[in-house]
Amino acid sequence: MSAPLRVGVAGLGTVGAGVARLLAENADLIAARAGRAIALVAVSARDRTRDRGVQLAGARWYEDATALAEAPGIDVVVELIGGSEGPARTLVERAIAAGRPVVSANKALLAVHGRALAEAAERAGVALAFEAAVAGGIPVIKALREGLAANRILSVAGILNGTCNYILTRMTEEGGDFAAVLADAQRLGYAEADPSFDIDGIDAAHKLSILAALAFGRPVAFEAVHVEGIRRVSALDIAFAGELGYRIKLLGIARAGEAGVSARVHPCLLPRAAPLARVDGVFNAVVIEGDTVGRVMLEGRGAGAGPTASAVVADLIDLARGRATPVWGGALAEAPSVPMTEHTGCYYLRLMVVDRPGVIADVTAVLRDHGVSLESMLQRGRAPGEAVPVVLVTHETREAAMTAALARIATLGAVLEAPSLLRIEPG
Amino acid sequence: MSAPLRVGVAGLGTVGAGVARLLAENADLIAARAGRAIALVAVSARDRTRDRGVQLAGARWYEDATALAEAPGIDVVVELIGGSEGPARTLVERAIAAGRPVVSANKALLAVHGRALAEAAERAGVALAFEAAVAGGIPVIKALREGLAANRILSVAGILNGTCNYILTRMTEEGGDFAAVLADAQRLGYAEADPSFDIDGIDAAHKLSILAALAFGRPVAFEAVHVEGIRRVSALDIAFAGELGYRIKLLGIARAGEAGVSARVHPCLLPRAAPLARVDGVFNAVVIEGDTVGRVMLEGRGAGAGPTASAVVADLIDLARGRATPVWGGALAEAPSVPMTEHTGCYYLRLMVVDRPGVIADVTAVLRDHGVSLESMLQRGRAPGEAVPVVLVTHETREAAMTAALARIATLGAVLEAPSLLRIEPG
Repeated sequence: MSAPLRVGVAGLGTVGAGVARLLAENADLIAARAGRAIALVAVSARDRTRDRGVQLAGARWYEDATALAEAPGIDVVVELIGGSEGPARTLVERAIAAGRPVVSANKALLAVHGRALAEAAERAGVALAFEAAVAGGIPVIKALREGLAANRILSVAGILNGTCNYILTRMTEEGGDFAAVLADAQRLGYAEADPSFDIDGIDAAHKLSILAALAFGRPVAFEAVHVEGIRRVSALDIAFAGELGYRIKLLGIARAGEAGVSARVHPCLLPRAAPLARVDGVFNAVVIEGDTVGRVMLEGRGAGAGPTASAVVADLIDLARGRATPVWGGALAEAPSVPMTEHTGCYYLRLMVVDRPGVIADVTAVLRDHGVSLESMLQRGRAPGEAVPVVLVTHETREAAMTAALARIATLGAVLEAPSLLRIEPG
Repeated sequence: MSAPLRVGVAGLGTVGAGVARLLAENADLIAARAGRAIALVAVSARDRTRDRGVQLAGARWYEDATALAEAPGIDVVVELIGGSEGPARTLVERAIAAGRPVVSANKALLAVHGRALAEAAERAGVALAFEAAVAGGIPVIKALREGLAANRILSVAGILNGTCNYILTRMTEEGGDFAAVLADAQRLGYAEADPSFDIDGIDAAHKLSILAALAFGRPVAFEAVHVEGIRRVSALDIAFAGELGYRIKLLGIARAGEAGVSARVHPCLLPRAAPLARVDGVFNAVVIEGDTVGRVMLEGRGAGAGPTASAVVADLIDLARGRATPVWGGALAEAPSVPMTEHTGCYYLRLMVVDRPGVIADVTAVLRDHGVSLESMLQRGRAPGEAVPVVLVTHETREAAMTAALARIATLGAVLEAPSLLRIEPG
């Protein structure tokens, strides 16, 4: 058996401690599968005194994480600090420049600086691995880059944020309102004290831009991803969606077409029988559509110490075995991005209107004027003179037409609140 | 870019022609991901004149498939002949002996001779890859051996035969009888003229023994797999299962415990909400449970030219890149197998009994005498003096006790047909 692979881990939060624990607990099995031992020789974190429930006595301690980039006796740097800038970015850049392979779980860093980092890694001839950055323990990056490598990938779609899926699942099951379920999720540890990164869709968009780049073999600019979060999904819309045979999910969807790549994260209505509609709670899932294999779905835990450590150590085993895959294996020029205004699809529109004759006629006239054709209309309950919900489902429509119609509808006197517009995905 | 990887394909049926087509159609993309071109330089099949819808003019033709093992100018042999003996086995053995890597889609060969072939490949220092042998286009072997390599695998369970899943799905949706649905599946090409390999569970057992060997890092004897097919699943049982909240699926389940490995293929009742219960039609799916990652499910098409070719070419891309993984990376001693008599679980028992007082008392007395405790009993319809179905669901019971009780019950005068016994899985 060859010499051990010597690993330095920067960042000893939940995931860092999980990696240290996994390397210790499954050491024999990992060595057998890696063909050699994987040894944790150096660590870096701010607070040296904290009890992390794992033995770190054998590892050298560095106060400054970026020192791991060049410190002697380290074969691989594992970056688990997080954040797209600051020490995480500096560490990864310096390690690559020093010719040292890097394993990172940092989706923000890879989404924002992935192109530059991949180019630097290619120039330096070192590996940059990041299975843990997307969908936690699910080996989706390996599936995209290796398992399905013979396919032209047509689309990637997924539930990429466990916090959002947990909140939407509970809203669906309990009929609860967003704010109340979010507060309870925070109390239970399923949502952060500042939840905006998750619930505004940023985290899912980071992951989607990484997946899209791998799927289509070229960088996808993070700024080109259309992002909407779940703050405005209401209990009323979840109930109406259910009545129409749909579940509301936050999806990230990337598709390659002749005009370029479209990448978007937003809540949408999925037919109840669609595979992604049935993925509940904190679970993540990704559906990859290849030209030869058809659709493949992968589902599992997208976060947490165990699943994330599982992905980090899988990358280390690949490195120990000498199994290397270039980041894109294709062009390094950015894919042209298709703007959201070009999107076409069906839409769900829910209005609160004054219950009086002629209102529906006014609304449908605006839709007609914008070329939007209706598939169905639903109005539950009568309360003459008061506010009642009206739900309209459109046939396939261009986003630009829908947006223009919506702006006009919002100005109608009988429309009382901001309309709720959700896209419908075929599933 | 390095020299092309020169491939010889033995067997030009649906899958072989699919591999040839895929290598031609996605040549650019495959070369980019493989780091070099993958060239089909030699083929072998019985009938040279048949139109396979693919251009083979550039490839040398061999009448004798086994000649590909040593023919000059070939870097990799792809075995797509099928069958555990005969030319497939000879070709693979000779190619390995000649120091030539092999890619095979042959589950029967690998299930029956996998241990010897893996040992020979290890001695010869050549790769033996077989992603296509299990679950078609789903990269489940890569997930087990690489993506989840940091985990101690606790269990693998899956829907591994598309023909059976198609038949059971249609029986469930239409309420049809096994024989009628099978005949229709044959007419539509979803079942073979001689369907026994599929519907008797042999094909699923081949795949399960391969998965179990990879999951637990050591050979699992094919003969030690307990196998029951779906011939005896009746429309009545599917209806009762539905009423109790279950779906009937043919599963392959392998689990590692202190006493060894249990591996079994049989129809079973799964709770309707279980992920595998929702996998319908010709789709395959595998749930892998790791000690660190938890449960990961992979779902997709398990057969057909496209999905199988996708997996074969993924193996070729790995070889072209020099990404190698030993077959087991662990002990080569066989895992001790746990006999089915040691199995414990809940059971569904359906009897046809004469509708007269005292029959249920007789049946439940036998169960009590064998230590089997009942969770529920269901009797629908009354027809004094005639045959009526009775369904009993047990609490957790040892298989040996259940078998003994069943033998006794079958001898009761009021029990009119062979009882139907199905295991219930927690899902």
